[in-house]
Amino acid sequence: MDAAIQTQAAANRVDYQIDPSKYQHYKVTFDGPVATLTIDINEDGGIRPGYKLKLNSYDLGVDIELHDIMQRIRFEHPEVKTVVFNSAKKVFCSGANIYMLGVSTHAWKVNFCKFTNETRNGLEDSSEHSGLKFIAACNGTTAGGGYELALACDEIYLIDDRNSSVSLPEVPLLGVLPGTGGLTRVTDKRKVRRDHADIFCTIQEGVRGQRAVDWKLVDGVIKQQQFNDEIKKRALELAEQSDRPGGQGVALTPLKRTIDDKGYHYEYVDTQIDRAARSVTITVKAPAATGPKDAAAILAAGTNWWPLQMTRELDDAILNLRTNELEVGLWIIKTEGNADIVLDYDAAIDANKGHWFVRETLGFMRRTFSRVDVSSRSLYALIEPGSCFAGSLLELALACDRSYMLDTTDGSGVNTVTPSVLNFGALPMANDISRLEARFYKEAAPIAAIKAKIGAKLTPAEAVELGLVTAAPDELDWAEEIRIACEERSALSPDALTGLEANLRFGIYESMKTRVFGRLSAWQNWIFIRPNAVGEFGALKVFGKGVKSKFNWERV
Amino acid sequence: MDAAIQTQAAANRVDYQIDPSKYQHYKVTFDGPVATLTIDINEDGGIRPGYKLKLNSYDLGVDIELHDIMQRIRFEHPEVKTVVFNSAKKVFCSGANIYMLGVSTHAWKVNFCKFTNETRNGLEDSSEHSGLKFIAACNGTTAGGGYELALACDEIYLIDDRNSSVSLPEVPLLGVLPGTGGLTRVTDKRKVRRDHADIFCTIQEGVRGQRAVDWKLVDGVIKQQQFNDEIKKRALELAEQSDRPGGQGVALTPLKRTIDDKGYHYEYVDTQIDRAARSVTITVKAPAATGPKDAAAILAAGTNWWPLQMTRELDDAILNLRTNELEVGLWIIKTEGNADIVLDYDAAIDANKGHWFVRETLGFMRRTFSRVDVSSRSLYALIEPGSCFAGSLLELALACDRSYMLDTTDGSGVNTVTPSVLNFGALPMANDISRLEARFYKEAAPIAAIKAKIGAKLTPAEAVELGLVTAAPDELDWAEEIRIACEERSALSPDALTGLEANLRFGIYESMKTRVFGRLSAWQNWIFIRPNAVGEFGALKVFGKGVKSKFNWERV
Repeated sequence: MDAAIQTQAAANRVDYQIDPSKYQHYKVTFDGPVATLTIDINEDGGIRPGYKLKLNSYDLGVDIELHDIMQRIRFEHPEVKTVVFNSAKKVFCSGANIYMLGVSTHAWKVNFCKFTNETRNGLEDSSEHSGLKFIAACNGTTAGGGYELALACDEIYLIDDRNSSVSLPEVPLLGVLPGTGGLTRVTDKRKVRRDHADIFCTIQEGVRGQRAVDWKLVDGVIKQQQFNDEIKKRALELAEQSDRPGGQGVALTPLKRTIDDKGYHYEYVDTQIDRAARSVTITVKAPAATGPKDAAAILAAGTNWWPLQMTRELDDAILNLRTNELEVGLWIIKTEGNADIVLDYDAAIDANKGHWFVRETLGFMRRTFSRVDVSSRSLYALIEPGSCFAGSLLELALACDRSYMLDTTDGSGVNTVTPSVLNFGALPMANDISRLEARFYKEAAPIAAIKAKIGAKLTPAEAVELGLVTAAPDELDWAEEIRIACEERSALSPDALTGLEANLRFGIYESMKTRVFGRLSAWQNWIFIRPNAVGEFGALKVFGKGVKSKFNWERV
Repeated sequence: MDAAIQTQAAANRVDYQIDPSKYQHYKVTFDGPVATLTIDINEDGGIRPGYKLKLNSYDLGVDIELHDIMQRIRFEHPEVKTVVFNSAKKVFCSGANIYMLGVSTHAWKVNFCKFTNETRNGLEDSSEHSGLKFIAACNGTTAGGGYELALACDEIYLIDDRNSSVSLPEVPLLGVLPGTGGLTRVTDKRKVRRDHADIFCTIQEGVRGQRAVDWKLVDGVIKQQQFNDEIKKRALELAEQSDRPGGQGVALTPLKRTIDDKGYHYEYVDTQIDRAARSVTITVKAPAATGPKDAAAILAAGTNWWPLQMTRELDDAILNLRTNELEVGLWIIKTEGNADIVLDYDAAIDANKGHWFVRETLGFMRRTFSRVDVSSRSLYALIEPGSCFAGSLLELALACDRSYMLDTTDGSGVNTVTPSVLNFGALPMANDISRLEARFYKEAAPIAAIKAKIGAKLTPAEAVELGLVTAAPDELDWAEEIRIACEERSALSPDALTGLEANLRFGIYESMKTRVFGRLSAWQNWIFIRPNAVGEFGALKVFGKGVKSKFNWERV
């Protein structure tokens, strides 16, 4: 890649690393246990040119900001127990910017929706696991993705100003779905009756007042005069239920990262892109030495604590590869280092999992590994001598579509994998069960057999026998078998692989999250490329141009 | 419509009504309790011109034949307890004809897959409910849709001829998914480990021998010499577990049907298409008098027994509207007749549900109503004076996206709905729960409140209060409200509606079947319109032409 192209590539690269000094869309205020995230989106702050973020509408950049805010609340602000979303504008939030969607490629739209979904899921993850509760204080019109953000909160309150409504106008207005979880949360989470949901999702103007409460679309409608007081009162009530301890947080200092044409390089994570092969090798490294054992020492290690630093690096690498390296379809995951050190860290996590900082780190690890599961990339784990697929890092192999383990012929046991206590529920997938449970369809015997081997260094033969790895070629076959497996994978239709992997990765167990990623997103992806949405007269294309959309009326 | 156009339309119309005299793809032989369906597809018997059905590949016409065979086994052959699929050719079945897929429109492909899915689900439905067991005796190569047919059987046996394999080569060969349930049944039904499934679905050559057994892809591999004997033995073993009684069957005589530009007209079902409005009114009528009460009399009524005849007519109407009326996007469902008579029939069904013929009729009703649930059409029920939305027919209103009930102002109780015992589990949706359970998210109180009203004639106000209907406009508003609701619906993007309805109709409860229709089909639909499959150099388009497919390598 010559210098000019490289400069261009760097300019186009989406960066997920920001910090509060760069915030331009959210005002974050802290008042004791309550953090208020005031949506005040900078019209001119789009992450790409060509559209204005009017009426508190958002694009990927806005969600990157929200993601950063949430990470800092989790780690830097252990005193925060309730997060309130409200707006500084008349509109609470009007959802994804339609002009942005109109000018975006299919891949951009899908990737944007995925990240937004993950951020929304992250709110619910913190509500479920981390003592953070979320209130959507809808002090203005709450439409589309704005209502989807509200749906991700624990409670939704709508201002009664005789005007503001909640709405999902995507179908009537744009000919697409409320695809960032909205359609799924209306049923799965809010349990809105299906005929009410049908009406709600097909009227532009939305629903307000008592009907919004009756239909379970909001938890309350509050008169304008009392709105702020009531929200504050409720935020404090929810805060009282939280077990977050307060005290000193852990500053998320900037990642040490270098970027070049080979990818993204960090202390514990490295990516090496092979553009000709359309693959990347992602190597996750164990630290050189064991770490702190008690909560105080772990907290003192802070952002440099290996589990946190490694996860931050891996998360950033995944997000970058997903967004900026679309053609790199095969992710080859390796590990490097001393498995005993990984197990030592796992033991420290398990022993201190009640401590807020350890809990946050484990939660971050859970969400990051979940990103791997829903990444539309083929995933192979290569388990070779010198690797450390142990415990938490074994999850990475279990997340892969296949795992290959080199069967060293000398019987020295030089190549092993090791389960730890963290493989049995601490790091669940999006379907709320462990990767081992999903792998074995919750069958008791194979899971118990692996549990009996916690801490054991399992040889390739044992790992195959226990069903932990896919295959264990010997040294004679290894290079050729891996080469063919990679080449054959990279030759397949990228779309077919995306569909295949989305169907196979979660086994048979569904949750609201897998229904968002696997069912709602699949339908949305289909609709996103149909002429009725994106053709010359598709609803998404003509929006705001004063032109009426023209549909092919065939029902398919 | 002038005469020439009408003739053309009639010639292009797909007809789902056939009889054994027209079979050309399956040889059906009966030997005591075992029916053998020998696949021997007529190459030149495609339902559309432009392709040859080589190597036991199928198209919609082949599946219409299978569907008819199964209906006749269910009703005309109560002595059959085991159904064996085998082949008269070297290939057991090579799946959907690829050239047919290549020349088909998107709508045709999707409709074809839906019907094929329903036929496969029908096998499993009969296995679960009706004492019929199914064996796939794969006496030759079993590929793609051929293996998907095998997966729908209870047991799969593969011949060991050192050549025949089972395979799902769609991804590597065609750049699409094994989308007729294959990908879902491999996990949900066969519980194949995900990495094994990943390999299996990405290799063209498939799997045979012991590996096929180890990976749970087949239930046994049988040497060529013993194959027929072993299959026969196993078929008889399965037959011994069946409670099908034998004796005289019920002949499925030809439907009395007329077709004109307004649609399909039968004795108890009528369709009136309004092409300008792109809607059709489907009216289901109660019989004029009550029916037989005991099993012997019901059996004597046979194919004229109202529940059976009405269901046959409704099933045919649905299939025709789905296939032949693509632009008719709104189905308005009405009923007509005496609710007491419907309830009388429901009581007879319930009292005799253990009898094979009643059980088959109820099963047919269940499968037909399930077709409504997965039809990609908007569904409104209009409940007006003179209607009979009672019991089994109330299910039709519950299947709709919305139901409107005219609130007659005179308080005469002239417009009512009535639940019967059949609304509480006898007619489950594809997700294995009743429409009422799905509607109320299994919440006990509202379901119990309705159960307490079995047999009661519920007024519009009561029906609204119980959550049975969406809205009850009064006589002043009725005409205008219905007109607007229909017009607004018909103006929306057909694709967005398909996605919306697919997400809302089943509530939050998934089964293998809903995962096939909602998750697998959604991904397949997306892939089916991507250039990597159907573009000039898409894998599906270039198949067999000696041209290599060219992919856009972006992962989305």
